[in-house]
Amino acid sequence: MTEELHNSIRDVPDFPKKGIIFKDITTLLKDPERFNQSIELMLAALGKRKIDIVASIESRGFIFGSVLAYRLKAGFVPIRKPGKLPAKTVSEKYELEYGTDQIEIHADAIIPGQDVLLVDDLLATGGTALAACKLIERLGGRIQAVMFLIELGFLKGRNLLNNYELISIITYN
Amino acid sequence: MTEELHNSIRDVPDFPKKGIIFKDITTLLKDPERFNQSIELMLAALGKRKIDIVASIESRGFIFGSVLAYRLKAGFVPIRKPGKLPAKTVSEKYELEYGTDQIEIHADAIIPGQDVLLVDDLLATGGTALAACKLIERLGGRIQAVMFLIELGFLKGRNLLNNYELISIITYN
Repeated sequence: MTEELHNSIRDVPDFPKKGIIFKDITTLLKDPERFNQSIELMLAALGKRKIDIVASIESRGFIFGSVLAYRLKAGFVPIRKPGKLPAKTVSEKYELEYGTDQIEIHADAIIPGQDVLLVDDLLATGGTALAACKLIERLGGRIQAVMFLIELGFLKGRNLLNNYELISIITYN
Repeated sequence: MTEELHNSIRDVPDFPKKGIIFKDITTLLKDPERFNQSIELMLAALGKRKIDIVASIESRGFIFGSVLAYRLKAGFVPIRKPGKLPAKTVSEKYELEYGTDQIEIHADAIIPGQDVLLVDDLLATGGTALAACKLIERLGGRIQAVMFLIELGFLKGRNLLNNYELISIITYN
């Protein structure tokens, strides 16, 4: 069933830099059947878990996270790059290949004890997702699952997130 | 009915710079009832228009655009800042208060003749939305409507978009 999804994702060589094959999901998103199928598979994988808040990482994470929040009748919380969220934020640094980066969440985005689903489009090394998990937990959120459409298995990002229930729909090994 | 929506949007003074009162929709998004209500109002305002593609402007536009695409059984097409889309793009410059900015769309995102709904969270001066309309039309898309959750009426962005059917759910005058 996921073969059609696989086939709807485009490989773009040498993006964002030479030697990297980028998994382009825009070809999936513009096909209503494939977009719908990806949402249905995510919901099915989530099963009966109770979710109060879907948190997503900008920008592609928003595309799946907002639809899942809508379908789950949960609230939607954006996790963003520094300086984008207007009110008081909490921020978390994470390692990149060279240097560090940072993401933020509104300090009042989550009520302590709320059940949270973290959603992003793609799991690579897992650094951003781990930082997002820390932000959610610092606000008192209880992470019920961390979900990705795509997992780049060969980058072993899963190891960094082994404290969490990790769900991915499509894995590349 | 939109009064509850109004009340769920937070005013943040002096963001992104001194003297501007920012309309913060994160307080609406984290409330499932208000998020759902905003989507239902958008769908109702759209009426019976046939939509093949929902195009949205990054990042906040994605949050509403993707849910509308899902509900309308349409494809979703992201319009992004330069350098973010991996495949061949078409780009359009637009004026800012000081200088210019640019947005891009994948050159193969729309099939000529497809009916397109453009969605963003907020209409200010209209420069970005007009550039997005031009991109869609350069690919042969037929714009059925341009939709915003919030319209800052006092900035008169509507005038710039008078070639299009413009729908906004909440207007501040």
